[in-house]
Order: sequence, then C-alpha cells, then structure tokens
Amino acid sequence: MLRQSRRDDRTMVGLRPHFVLLFVLTLLLSAFSDASHCSSTQGLSLVRNISELPQDNYGRGGLSHITVAGSFMHGMKEVEVWLQTFSPGTHTPIHRHSCEEIFVVLKGSGTLYLASDSHGKYPGTPQEFSIFSNSTFHIPVNDAHQVWNTNKHEDLQVLVIISRPPVKVFIYEDWFMPHTAAKLKYPYYWDEECLKASRKDEL
Amino acid sequence: MLRQSRRDDRTMVGLRPHFVLLFVLTLLLSAFSDASHCSSTQGLSLVRNISELPQDNYGRGGLSHITVAGSFMHGMKEVEVWLQTFSPGTHTPIHRHSCEEIFVVLKGSGTLYLASDSHGKYPGTPQEFSIFSNSTFHIPVNDAHQVWNTNKHEDLQVLVIISRPPVKVFIYEDWFMPHTAAKLKYPYYWDEECLKASRKDEL
Repeated sequence: MLRQSRRDDRTMVGLRPHFVLLFVLTLLLSAFSDASHCSSTQGLSLVRNISELPQDNYGRGGLSHITVAGSFMHGMKEVEVWLQTFSPGTHTPIHRHSCEEIFVVLKGSGTLYLASDSHGKYPGTPQEFSIFSNSTFHIPVNDAHQVWNTNKHEDLQVLVIISRPPVKVFIYEDWFMPHTAAKLKYPYYWDEECLKASRKDEL
Repeated sequence: MLRQSRRDDRTMVGLRPHFVLLFVLTLLLSAFSDASHCSSTQGLSLVRNISELPQDNYGRGGLSHITVAGSFMHGMKEVEVWLQTFSPGTHTPIHRHSCEEIFVVLKGSGTLYLASDSHGKYPGTPQEFSIFSNSTFHIPVNDAHQVWNTNKHEDLQVLVIISRPPVKVFIYEDWFMPHTAAKLKYPYYWDEECLKASRKDEL
C-alpha cells in the first residue's frame, strides 16, 4: 500500500507540470475561442456552416441565438442576420430599435405584439398578429414590439434581419412605460463579447 | 339537329354579353393583380404567407424568385429579402452591386464564384467556394460574383438579403469584361412591375 501510495505521489508530482501546462493552455484556448469568431480576429472563412457557429442563450432561458452574419462578428456594415429559436412560452422583451427588422418564420408559430403609435407617450395596448411557419413580417422603425412563442408544443424558429447594425435596443418593462423611460441596452447581449474583444485589440 | 343548333346559337347569343363582361373583368383583375402586391396599393397585410407571395422566373429558365420583403413591393427602405430557387445547372449572371449581400442556403448545394479584386480593370478569374445546405456567406460591396447550382440532382434554395434596396445590378458577359463595360440593369427584373405600377400612381 505504502509503495503504491508513493508511486501515486510520484505520479502526481510527475503530472503537476503537465497539469499547469494544461491549465494555461485551457485558459489560452478559452480566451482565443471567446474572440475567435469575431471579425477583429483573422481567419473567418467566407462560407460558414451555420450549425458550427457560436450559439448561446445569453442568460435568457429557452432562447438560442446565433449571429449568422453580424457587424462585430463578421464585419457587416449595413445589415445583420440572426437565427433565433424560442422554446414554448418564451419571448423577446418588449422593445424598440431605430432600424428596419424583417422576420422569416422557419418553424413553429406564435404571436407578434406590435404597438404602432410611436407618437404617443408610451406604446399602449399592442395589436396582436398570428405568425406561423413560412410567414414573414417586418417591424416599422421604432415601433415597440414583442415576439412570443405562444405554441405550447413546438419551438419557434425565426431568421431575423436588421439594418443599421449593431442593434441598439430600448427595453420596456410593460406596454405603458413611457418611451423616455425605456432602457437602452447597448451593446446588446450577443455583441458584448466581440466588442470586448475588439476593445482589447485596440490597446 | 337544326333545333339543337338554334338552341346553341341562342345560348351563344345569350352568353355574349357575359363573355364580354367576363373578358373586361379578367382584364381589370389582371391589371389589379399586377399591382396588388406593390406597396403603392393599400391592403398589404403585415404578416404574409410566403407560399402565397408572387413567384416568377422573370424569363430565366429554372429560376423561381419571390420577393419576401421588398422596397417597391412592401415599402422597405434599408433592407430587402428574396427567396430564390435554382434548378440543377442554373445560375445567376456574373454581376456586382453597390450593397451588402448575405446568402443563407436553405436547401441543396452549389458553387460561389467570387472575384474580389475590384481595383483591377476587370473581375478576372474568380475564386471558387463550395456552398451547401445550412451554410451562409456574404458578398463584399461591389465584388463581382456568380452563384451556380452545380448539383445535378437537387434544387438550390437560398434566402438572399441585400442592403440599400432597390438593387442596381451591373452585369458582365464574362470574367474578363472591363468593369466599365458591365451593363446596368435597373430596375432589376422583379422590381420592374412595381415600378411601373408606382409610376402609374403618380400620374
């Protein structure tokens, strides 16, 4: 037992430098992978497999967001494309942005809530629109809106196209919150990582 | 026989005004349907079923083009989305445009030809890129390019997103045609109909 134990100790001692090396390598790889999909890092291929692009929920349960072609991530200047999946019952915040936005529904169904009166003091009770697989709709610039997966049985998957990237989002707590009280979130969640990486590049 | 014939004659005579009415109605309906999907005509619904949108090959065999959200058709100002299907062996012309363009490949596979040197006198031999289902790529502003369905067995279906609509396309006969000789096609084929309709509205 003692010899065994000693051998184990030796093995551990022998492995220690490897562990340290592995740890350092992991840190380096993780730092690299954080920024490796951002445009500031060279090596992005022109044709990309969407299944292999970074996917995250950015702290929102039931969301999957992929930036298919983005401003910070791929150097787009005038247009940006996301692939988003909402599990049953999940939704976007009530929000507005000063850009055009087009949705193409790839799978599932849900409800679009749209408050078109941006001249009032607050969005007010929104209109409801049914959205469904193979449908398309666009959000007029600055109209407050919210997309819900109201289908209990199926994911809602949409391609989202915005102009004037990166997106600057004003978020409302409810439909009667004054426009002036809506909170600006910029950079938006999926842009934060690349923005940090590009700031590091500038140093 | 004679009576029968007479009855037929009477029937025909009786139907004549209906035929004329039907003919006039058909003409009116056809004129209306030509412009009914254009933004200048009111009544476009916010959520649209893509399967019910106008689809045409615009004189190009093997092409199916649908304007999912367009400038002339739906009043978009900053971004436009098309759904295009190319049958095996068919392709776009060699062309360039002064806007960003993103492709999302929904089905099939093919080849992207891209001549990135827009500083030369002509595009020159292009680079070749394999494109495949669930891939994405974008065309840098003003780079000459061509998309081919090089898969003999399957349609190639793509969502195309462009900025700065409506598109102004410069078409090349081959990769060695000088940039200055490329022919401007504006309005592009799918925009012509709505542009005509909106010009009529201005009169």
